[in-house]
Amino acid sequence: MLNPTPADKFSFGLWTVGWPARDQFGKASRPDLDPFDSIRKLKELGAWGFTFHDNDVIPFDATPAERDDLICTLKKTIDETGMVCEMVTTDTFAEPVFKDGAFTSNDRRVRRYGLRKVLRNVDLAAELGATTFVMWGGREGAEYDSSKDLHAALERYAEGIDTVAGYIKSQGYDLRIGLEPKPNEPRGDIFLPTIGHALAFIQRLDNGDVVGLNPETGHEQMATLNYTHGLAQALWSEKLFHIDLNGQNGPMYDQDLVFGHGNLISAFFTVDLLENGFPSKPGAYEGARHFDYKTSRTDHVTGVWDSALANMRMYLILKERALAFRADPEVQEALAYAGVHELAEPTLGADESLESFLADPSVYEGLDLTGPSERNYGYVRLHQLAVEHLTGARG
Amino acid sequence: MLNPTPADKFSFGLWTVGWPARDQFGKASRPDLDPFDSIRKLKELGAWGFTFHDNDVIPFDATPAERDDLICTLKKTIDETGMVCEMVTTDTFAEPVFKDGAFTSNDRRVRRYGLRKVLRNVDLAAELGATTFVMWGGREGAEYDSSKDLHAALERYAEGIDTVAGYIKSQGYDLRIGLEPKPNEPRGDIFLPTIGHALAFIQRLDNGDVVGLNPETGHEQMATLNYTHGLAQALWSEKLFHIDLNGQNGPMYDQDLVFGHGNLISAFFTVDLLENGFPSKPGAYEGARHFDYKTSRTDHVTGVWDSALANMRMYLILKERALAFRADPEVQEALAYAGVHELAEPTLGADESLESFLADPSVYEGLDLTGPSERNYGYVRLHQLAVEHLTGARG
Amino acid sequence: MLNPTPADKFSFGLWTVGWPARDQFGKASRPDLDPFDSIRKLKELGAWGFTFHDNDVIPFDATPAERDDLICTLKKTIDETGMVCEMVTTDTFAEPVFKDGAFTSNDRRVRRYGLRKVLRNVDLAAELGATTFVMWGGREGAEYDSSKDLHAALERYAEGIDTVAGYIKSQGYDLRIGLEPKPNEPRGDIFLPTIGHALAFIQRLDNGDVVGLNPETGHEQMATLNYTHGLAQALWSEKLFHIDLNGQNGPMYDQDLVFGHGNLISAFFTVDLLENGFPSKPGAYEGARHFDYKTSRTDHVTGVWDSALANMRMYLILKERALAFRADPEVQEALAYAGVHELAEPTLGADESLESFLADPSVYEGLDLTGPSERNYGYVRLHQLAVEHLTGARG
Amino acid sequence: MLNPTPADKFSFGLWTVGWPARDQFGKASRPDLDPFDSIRKLKELGAWGFTFHDNDVIPFDATPAERDDLICTLKKTIDETGMVCEMVTTDTFAEPVFKDGAFTSNDRRVRRYGLRKVLRNVDLAAELGATTFVMWGGREGAEYDSSKDLHAALERYAEGIDTVAGYIKSQGYDLRIGLEPKPNEPRGDIFLPTIGHALAFIQRLDNGDVVGLNPETGHEQMATLNYTHGLAQALWSEKLFHIDLNGQNGPMYDQDLVFGHGNLISAFFTVDLLENGFPSKPGAYEGARHFDYKTSRTDHVTGVWDSALANMRMYLILKERALAFRADPEVQEALAYAGVHELAEPTLGADESLESFLADPSVYEGLDLTGPSERNYGYVRLHQLAVEHLTGARG
Repeated sequence: MLNPTPADKFSFGLWTVGWPARDQFGKASRPDLDPFDSIRKLKELGAWGFTFHDNDVIPFDATPAERDDLICTLKKTIDETGMVCEMVTTDTFAEPVFKDGAFTSNDRRVRRYGLRKVLRNVDLAAELGATTFVMWGGREGAEYDSSKDLHAALERYAEGIDTVAGYIKSQGYDLRIGLEPKPNEPRGDIFLPTIGHALAFIQRLDNGDVVGLNPETGHEQMATLNYTHGLAQALWSEKLFHIDLNGQNGPMYDQDLVFGHGNLISAFFTVDLLENGFPSKPGAYEGARHFDYKTSRTDHVTGVWDSALANMRMYLILKERALAFRADPEVQEALAYAGVHELAEPTLGADESLESFLADPSVYEGLDLTGPSERNYGYVRLHQLAVEHLTGARG
Repeated sequence: MLNPTPADKFSFGLWTVGWPARDQFGKASRPDLDPFDSIRKLKELGAWGFTFHDNDVIPFDATPAERDDLICTLKKTIDETGMVCEMVTTDTFAEPVFKDGAFTSNDRRVRRYGLRKVLRNVDLAAELGATTFVMWGGREGAEYDSSKDLHAALERYAEGIDTVAGYIKSQGYDLRIGLEPKPNEPRGDIFLPTIGHALAFIQRLDNGDVVGLNPETGHEQMATLNYTHGLAQALWSEKLFHIDLNGQNGPMYDQDLVFGHGNLISAFFTVDLLENGFPSKPGAYEGARHFDYKTSRTDHVTGVWDSALANMRMYLILKERALAFRADPEVQEALAYAGVHELAEPTLGADESLESFLADPSVYEGLDLTGPSERNYGYVRLHQLAVEHLTGARG
Repeated sequence: MLNPTPADKFSFGLWTVGWPARDQFGKASRPDLDPFDSIRKLKELGAWGFTFHDNDVIPFDATPAERDDLICTLKKTIDETGMVCEMVTTDTFAEPVFKDGAFTSNDRRVRRYGLRKVLRNVDLAAELGATTFVMWGGREGAEYDSSKDLHAALERYAEGIDTVAGYIKSQGYDLRIGLEPKPNEPRGDIFLPTIGHALAFIQRLDNGDVVGLNPETGHEQMATLNYTHGLAQALWSEKLFHIDLNGQNGPMYDQDLVFGHGNLISAFFTVDLLENGFPSKPGAYEGARHFDYKTSRTDHVTGVWDSALANMRMYLILKERALAFRADPEVQEALAYAGVHELAEPTLGADESLESFLADPSVYEGLDLTGPSERNYGYVRLHQLAVEHLTGARG
Repeated sequence: MLNPTPADKFSFGLWTVGWPARDQFGKASRPDLDPFDSIRKLKELGAWGFTFHDNDVIPFDATPAERDDLICTLKKTIDETGMVCEMVTTDTFAEPVFKDGAFTSNDRRVRRYGLRKVLRNVDLAAELGATTFVMWGGREGAEYDSSKDLHAALERYAEGIDTVAGYIKSQGYDLRIGLEPKPNEPRGDIFLPTIGHALAFIQRLDNGDVVGLNPETGHEQMATLNYTHGLAQALWSEKLFHIDLNGQNGPMYDQDLVFGHGNLISAFFTVDLLENGFPSKPGAYEGARHFDYKTSRTDHVTGVWDSALANMRMYLILKERALAFRADPEVQEALAYAGVHELAEPTLGADESLESFLADPSVYEGLDLTGPSERNYGYVRLHQLAVEHLTGARG
């Protein structure tokens, strides 16, 4: 039951297992892994797909011939393993040229260069059959408010994304962009810091129809926000195009722990949402279950594969628990008692006009407030039932 | 220069000076103030306007006759003082009936009751000549993820706001709704937790044209976010309808300090944006400079008026500093050096097609990266100039 | 197994179940409970003890006769139920007189008054057989750095605690003081903000031998700190005199959720420490398992008792999981693999002089760093085993 | 006035200006600087001293001969420039061998190796005339609670520090250890996370007399704590041996901004404390004003020196403001009004016995609480005066 299979649609970034554990305060503690070996190894562990930044596979300074060779090897590895290349993304943050961002760099040369680097990878993504193209603008931001014309920054960001989105449409690619919000690190303040800001931004684009989100667990939690609530608003907005699952312990540096190794209760409800959907709109999320985590620097290569597996096992445990939670008659009773289903009922009646609503004294003047004021919603008991399921203490 | 006048458009919530200093851990330490006296006192201090929740003036259990009397007194006070009632809002959080929210309570009776309470105050706002109607959904949220159907919650929230907005339009009121985001407190997670989430929400409303934002300084900072960046995105989205200025020291309980008494550098840049606009889109914000703060509980009534004045003085000091900052030739040189104006230039040329852009080797293959990689943007020096202006160490 | 019994030593503050759900933004939503009924009810649920602030039982304005009557009733309730009054504490935060603190108020009258209020409750605590006297200085702090002479504040705080501790010793009471740190709320910055600060403070007292700590889960987590690490340092310092267990979701307002309903993994390791001790110093904590939580305001009286029970069930579930974790042979293998036991071995040999250590080239010059640099500590796998135990996915 | 001179005792870590701007998400964007050039350049800018980690000057893999040469060059540079090498520290975090810590690594070989590396630098520090030896245990910590025996970790940490302190004493070096606390990053939880925890730890050492603190502004603020309050407790404990000044914006990654470029009001009060001392214990801090910051990655080498200068100018501006603040008669009146001086008066009278205090009804039973309850401490007005001084709006 806890053995991952391709049917589970687990996917990993090559940069996750491939992270050589170089961090802000220390040198690399693990060797560089061969990305093609990593794809094979992930296949063995039960993964279904993989994703990558261009420079995870193709060195930044590769010649065109080297690039072609590597792409060729990548395709062979895909054919050989059956692993799905479900998402491609572009590194616009590691090189010094991008130190002030790519699409919002104050230097127009950089903006143009970055746009070309991204467009080139759009072609590659399409060529490899990927259906999602993630854009994490990690360097799009500032430490100092006057260093950016904030209006111009949003204009340029929109111009850049719209150009990429327009190009995708013009080429007829079956590809959608997933913007990845993050509040800070490596910049003091990153533009589009949360799911909300990114959703609002998309709605002002000309080509926003092919632009949605790739929200990461830890990024929202770094801003003290509830990741599952964020996913819910993205789903409600029909913009949850991809997900990055991992673990984080609140506002601090970006930890990228194994999924479930941070806020476990929140991870449980994330899986509950992805597998069960909303009470009023049931149904599982259909995209990849994609992990964007890092193996702790204290682990060596053996730990890389242990940790990759741990992500998938955590998801499967939480899925099992979430299914049991919703199926438990006592939980169903507690949900009904709490009025959870009642919230799906419109506030105004189907045939009720605003006039009649305003004129109905039983709604306001005549309402006895005692009942609703003293209502015991029973939310603590309901949550205790959830945590008992999560800890395997029921059923 | 630091004496506030009505031309400065300073405005205060009656609940700010009127807070009797009852908090989570302590009893009231100040007497209830007469709201009409407060209006007169604010006038004396140099304020231009005031705002209120219905229950700041009209007790929750007032009879219709008592309500009419109080509204009559309020109008007289407005006439007498010339103070502008620029915004009205509704208390949907203090009474036990709203303990699970108003528009998103699981209890439909409460949703209907809350909607009526709000609509009643829309009429009152219009009657008093207010142009903004703020809605802070402080109890719209949850502590436990399964206690809410999150899809239904967003549906009901949208239904509620759309109903109010539609009513405003149907009545021909010159009134716009300002949603006020907050991440948490008094609920563990509040729906529409940030400026971004609220902007995204509005764009899915039927009557979103009259719905915008009322962002509060401290609320964004409780989520580790940059308030000025948030204002910028609201302005870019043409949705900054109102503001709540105050002070906060990062993620903790909602402090509601005097404006500038929290993150001072951020307050400086907020005023810079409100007074100077963006470099590429200059011009001052035209709405009220509205303060939503609380006098510290250690101060008594004398301190209430000292602190009200402090908000206005802080704003005027920061305005003086922000104007001098932008006028300083050395700052202008540093801004140019940093490429701040360059960001307003579109990334693609005016007549440049995507095809020619993609075919231009000077953009990518032929670009010498050394220049942009080694560019000294000079952001630290620019920021030091800003802080020297802020501290009055220049000019 | 999950039914609490007195042998589990569960204890509750009367203010926890008794909280009428009045918060910063709302009126009370629950009736005041009779404290004697609460003791009986907690007994029924399986609790072993209870604790209280003076004003939880005796109103602040009670006459001496009323006070005596209430104490008499309290003793009868203790006799009748067999519930242990294990800790007493003093309310020095709710009344306006304490708005600037008690022991560190700038007003000497208040400091003297507060000291008397505390000493009076020391006598009461001894009279009732309590063995711990908790002091939470929630109002000892400031919002503004210049409002306090910080040296004098620490001097006065020390004078106050030393006076109380000296009095306890002079009276021969079997009572120890437990200081309760908190970083903020209701003050912007509270003195002795963390376990560390309080431990350091105690070591400078004259009567510090009877002064230790009462650390609260959520208070440390509000400062982004690891509660279990804090408990460990308090234990290492032989100063863990009492505990306050509850739940919190990182830096925000003080949530006081049910234990385990916040950071669940951290709660697991807290129970692991309390029940299993350290690997190198095994043995269970012997004090009360004391809960300091609040029932969510959305629940009514029924929810109060559901939530009280939830705390105890959570603890028992986590205890069961923690015992199984340590007993699992695979865990034991992983702990050995990770070198966890190796850390108990002194760095210098038992008979090794510093001279010989410095002269031994195999330690430094001759050490092949490859082995330790490439060591796979296996921490992620170990943690996955812990989380699998926590979720009941093993054994 | 704002031109730094050696009399100001400004000091810089060589790693600060020398940081090549390699971060968690990006490659180095600046060249490595020659450390000897940096000393000369800092001298030119007005600095008085410098500090370094061994590996800032001596590469980790230097041969003994190379090491000797570099030390020789360092001494010559000191002689030539007159710059004071006031503090030395050891890099026990960058190399893979230290990935699990040095003094608390689970691997005993690493603990022994780390201890030798540190002791070697103690000799070097003494040789260079440094008077402070800083120890930042950045890798002493864990991500996962079961990966460490927390009791053993504290035992080993104490063994290590005690060995170093004992060695210093045995050699008769005029050198004191300064422990540098940090809550997290690069580990999920670092041992001795705050000033408080480190103070408490020191008091349990055998050789704690030569061990004190080196608190860093941003590290405390990452844990939501008030840095100036922390300094005050360190001073009260007579353990403020050294300081690291910089800037930070609350709980997020360690920003290491220029001093004053983060929380400006807090920086003002830090300088006020360092320059003015406490009201009841006046007098300036006598140690180096040491900056531990990083030039933002968007700046190139020019920006390095601009930013180094900015730290010193910020300090001088804040010093000027803090002196004026304390000298202002209106401030003095407001301090008196607020009772700030009253806090230095003992709570019990000089000749008052506890018995007479307990028997005095005017203290408690007879006290009219109205006065202290309704006292207006005037803290907001006092703070406004502080901020007006800080912004140069007064005097």
